[in-house]
Amino acid sequence: MMNYMSMSKEELLNEKEKLQKEYDEYAKLNLSLNMARGKPCEEQLDITEGMLTVMQKNEDCFTDKGFDCRNYGLVDGLDDAKKMFAPIIGVPWDQIIMGGNSSLNLMYDAMARCMLYGVNGGNGPWVKQEKVKFLCPVPGYDRHFAICESLGIEMVNVPLLNDGPDMDVVEELIKDEAVKGIWCVPKYSNPTGCTYSDATVKRLASMKPASKDFRIFWDNAYAIHDIYEDKKDELLDILPECEKAGNPNLVYIFASTSKISFPGSGVSCLGSSKENIEYIKSIMQMQTIGHDKMNMLRHVKFFKDADGVVAFMKKHADILRPKFEICEKKLSKELSGLGIAEWTKPLGGYFVSLDVPEGCAKRVVSLAKQAGVVLTDAGATFPYHNDPKDTNIRIAPSFPPVSELETAMDVLCVCVKLASVEKLVG
Amino acid sequence: MMNYMSMSKEELLNEKEKLQKEYDEYAKLNLSLNMARGKPCEEQLDITEGMLTVMQKNEDCFTDKGFDCRNYGLVDGLDDAKKMFAPIIGVPWDQIIMGGNSSLNLMYDAMARCMLYGVNGGNGPWVKQEKVKFLCPVPGYDRHFAICESLGIEMVNVPLLNDGPDMDVVEELIKDEAVKGIWCVPKYSNPTGCTYSDATVKRLASMKPASKDFRIFWDNAYAIHDIYEDKKDELLDILPECEKAGNPNLVYIFASTSKISFPGSGVSCLGSSKENIEYIKSIMQMQTIGHDKMNMLRHVKFFKDADGVVAFMKKHADILRPKFEICEKKLSKELSGLGIAEWTKPLGGYFVSLDVPEGCAKRVVSLAKQAGVVLTDAGATFPYHNDPKDTNIRIAPSFPPVSELETAMDVLCVCVKLASVEKLVG
Repeated sequence: MMNYMSMSKEELLNEKEKLQKEYDEYAKLNLSLNMARGKPCEEQLDITEGMLTVMQKNEDCFTDKGFDCRNYGLVDGLDDAKKMFAPIIGVPWDQIIMGGNSSLNLMYDAMARCMLYGVNGGNGPWVKQEKVKFLCPVPGYDRHFAICESLGIEMVNVPLLNDGPDMDVVEELIKDEAVKGIWCVPKYSNPTGCTYSDATVKRLASMKPASKDFRIFWDNAYAIHDIYEDKKDELLDILPECEKAGNPNLVYIFASTSKISFPGSGVSCLGSSKENIEYIKSIMQMQTIGHDKMNMLRHVKFFKDADGVVAFMKKHADILRPKFEICEKKLSKELSGLGIAEWTKPLGGYFVSLDVPEGCAKRVVSLAKQAGVVLTDAGATFPYHNDPKDTNIRIAPSFPPVSELETAMDVLCVCVKLASVEKLVG
Repeated sequence: MMNYMSMSKEELLNEKEKLQKEYDEYAKLNLSLNMARGKPCEEQLDITEGMLTVMQKNEDCFTDKGFDCRNYGLVDGLDDAKKMFAPIIGVPWDQIIMGGNSSLNLMYDAMARCMLYGVNGGNGPWVKQEKVKFLCPVPGYDRHFAICESLGIEMVNVPLLNDGPDMDVVEELIKDEAVKGIWCVPKYSNPTGCTYSDATVKRLASMKPASKDFRIFWDNAYAIHDIYEDKKDELLDILPECEKAGNPNLVYIFASTSKISFPGSGVSCLGSSKENIEYIKSIMQMQTIGHDKMNMLRHVKFFKDADGVVAFMKKHADILRPKFEICEKKLSKELSGLGIAEWTKPLGGYFVSLDVPEGCAKRVVSLAKQAGVVLTDAGATFPYHNDPKDTNIRIAPSFPPVSELETAMDVLCVCVKLASVEKLVG
């Protein structure tokens, strides 16, 4: 395959014509394919069927210690559920609060709590402060950015490198007292799939931000979401590193079973220092008498413990692996050597990140949409939907069946080539 | 029985000695009884057993229209669940947002949203305003008051009469622009059990508060929680009244199945005007991808519709009725004619409200506690835990088994008498 960059104008025009025809053929197919969101596919949902029957009788609704999960109580949830999560997120079980069906909700609530009450040992409610800024490694997760935007928190881009956020930039930015925290998806990052290196985790854990309000929002969404058994990224547990660095209260760690059991009906958790957890509980008890303990118990009965969860994840891996491999195969076959695209090859998580020539991402997404392939909006991986170079596209291969995914990737590759050639011919 | 008020000092001292002996006898029994919270009892929990098996297979997880409830999506929940609630709360189904397992959580979030964003058509975030006040009919629900206290909202007491809040007082207080709303438990009010009259509902619905931020927080927690089939309170639907009065956006209506299905694992909802609902949804979608739809579907499959829910409530009534009747029987037998106590005789809900002589409520609760009977803290039914006359005690008869309840009420009555005599002898 010839590199587009070394083509003459005439060659490019020929290529464009050829690509346009290919594109038009796809457009005629009336496709309706979706690679927009990190949604598990039906096959993945089906493997959790057994959870539907772990509690069938009244007597099944009690914990081993005899606690009745049907009634009110336990604002921070079941110990057994905490114990199931503890090894997964690297936090002692008694420093965990169980949430409802959504870790996003826990994260929003954590941020809202900072706004309304401030953090323990901090400078009071963030709403009372003139300006609140948050560091956002980019590309990143659109729903994190939406929380900040919604609450009026100014977002500051930080480049996300292959081993995590650019720590030189972070360490410079945290000298600003208005900077109150940083969003992190530390393992199989959304969307690049990178995992923070031990060195990055240690540097994050030992930061000395100017603001004592500073908190790391550690969204460990893909903690055990490996797709290969023999090669997987290892993430250093951050809480012990924070403790060692004298920053025990620096981090809030979030996780859920949304991509383990049922996406809309999993259980979530928040882990942190004893002091943070006590503080959060003291406010959270105004908000609820406690989240759904029946669903926590359902999870505990189905998975038993962390080992059970990890073993179960192999079933997800078996379903997801071929899909990631299709992405890689198609991108590699269609785009390698053209000089127009770079993409990631993650060992887990839910996304592949694709960079196209500057100023082309929106065009690619728009072309794909017109041909019936829905991608995440270009720009969504950046704060304020603003990808300064209009370069990044997030591919979410989990939801479509394999056959559809193949077609969707073919369409995407044609769109990338067409948009690139359009740009080159001017 | 002789009225304590007409006893001589000597008679009172004799009575006190007698009561002290009675009390000491109870204290020796090492009782451990609890009438503190409105918790359903085990028998009530058991009747929902059938809900545990309505979804056993993957194919059971779809709505009638084929929507897969296991996956992400539907920020405002299942239409079928909305339709189940609509007739119960008197709101068109498409003006309902389904929540998680707790209407308290919906209420807290609604208040937090007012603080952070303000209301649609209002004056912006309440946190930006110098002072925010809320009207609190008293005695009332401690968890409502806790939300206000936690968020720094100043609470203003309004007397709760037998037909609802004293509207003359309300109409005077809403002339203050800082007054942003009112808490209401309009049917079988917590703790008095009173139901707002049609006239009160209409007056509330047609209020013209000085602040355009004003919202009625209508916690219809006991909408269908009658204990008699032949005599029950009827509550006028407030939303149509608000519309008629030109105040369509005045009210937020909350309800849940916490005291219908499982207290810790029910489903909740928020109903309001189209405009309010759209506004709330626009913010709520930053907070969550949607609440647990599997649990919503479980409820829909178990109850079918609102009629199914209402029919089911008769089972709860059969369990609760005898308990309310024990309260009434004991209070009437032990305290009638003594001139020291008044109490309510509700036709539903979860509470009986008992007024003892001024300055005696704390003493009664403390005496009961020492004798092994835990009551709701005296003062809890007032903002800031401050019952100005130290008079009101909330009795929650639902949780203890009948035999325990009888004993607990005996103890309570002795404590009321003893505290009253103590006060009278000075």
